[in-house]
Amino acid sequence: MASKKTKPADPAAHIPGEFAYKGLDRVLHEKARLGILTSLVTWPKGLVFGELKSLCALTDGNLNRHLKTLQEAGMIEIKKGYQDNHPQTLVRMTAQGRSKFSEYLEELERVIERAAAAQAAIEATAAARGTLRPRPA
Amino acid sequence: MASKKTKPADPAAHIPGEFAYKGLDRVLHEKARLGILTSLVTWPKGLVFGELKSLCALTDGNLNRHLKTLQEAGMIEIKKGYQDNHPQTLVRMTAQGRSKFSEYLEELERVIERAAAAQAAIEATAAARGTLRPRPA
Repeated sequence: MASKKTKPADPAAHIPGEFAYKGLDRVLHEKARLGILTSLVTWPKGLVFGELKSLCALTDGNLNRHLKTLQEAGMIEIKKGYQDNHPQTLVRMTAQGRSKFSEYLEELERVIERAAAAQAAIEATAAARGTLRPRPA
Repeated sequence: MASKKTKPADPAAHIPGEFAYKGLDRVLHEKARLGILTSLVTWPKGLVFGELKSLCALTDGNLNRHLKTLQEAGMIEIKKGYQDNHPQTLVRMTAQGRSKFSEYLEELERVIERAAAAQAAIEATAAARGTLRPRPA
């Protein structure tokens, strides 16, 4: 039998809910909202509606919907004002938003590290033993 | 004016669709499916339905729904069989699934690196200039 280090994980040793990822907040873990938040983190002074729409390739309706979700979660603030006599909607991340986003990124980093380590272990096992059992016909 | 290196990002210099994250496949980026895939990568010989259900803390209905989505995308294979005269559903990742999941993880890693770098830049700027502009009353 292989040493403990190279032995595949034992399903009997699993921890219930180990892969439930409770730390991955659904508000943040949505692809469009992830794009909006990363944009806002990149431009901390804020972005106007049209800039966000273009950066994230979203329609007016979709962007509005996602901004509402993020505002309700306290992640962003929306200020309606005027720039050169034109109405302007400025969107900025709140301090709470930056803090929550930071925690989310750390959790996601852990998920990736773990999955990448498991994938590397498969490749190492496959290389040592030949390929994995072929798919039955 | 600050040097190019420390200057905040210029919205006028943005690339349309830069934060649309087209590489983040919605099939894989869903929290429950991410948990299922990471479980299956950790146990490359496959997991039976009950094990997956427990690891990912999902109901029968939810797990069935997500497995169907993953199977239709060619990410997993589902084999119905018997173990000690009891019906058993074994779920395994396909070679294509492992390859797609690997690409997804790389894309996600880039998203995180970028967001983390932007957050670090904000903190450096805040530390150098005092805190960010306070929220108006």
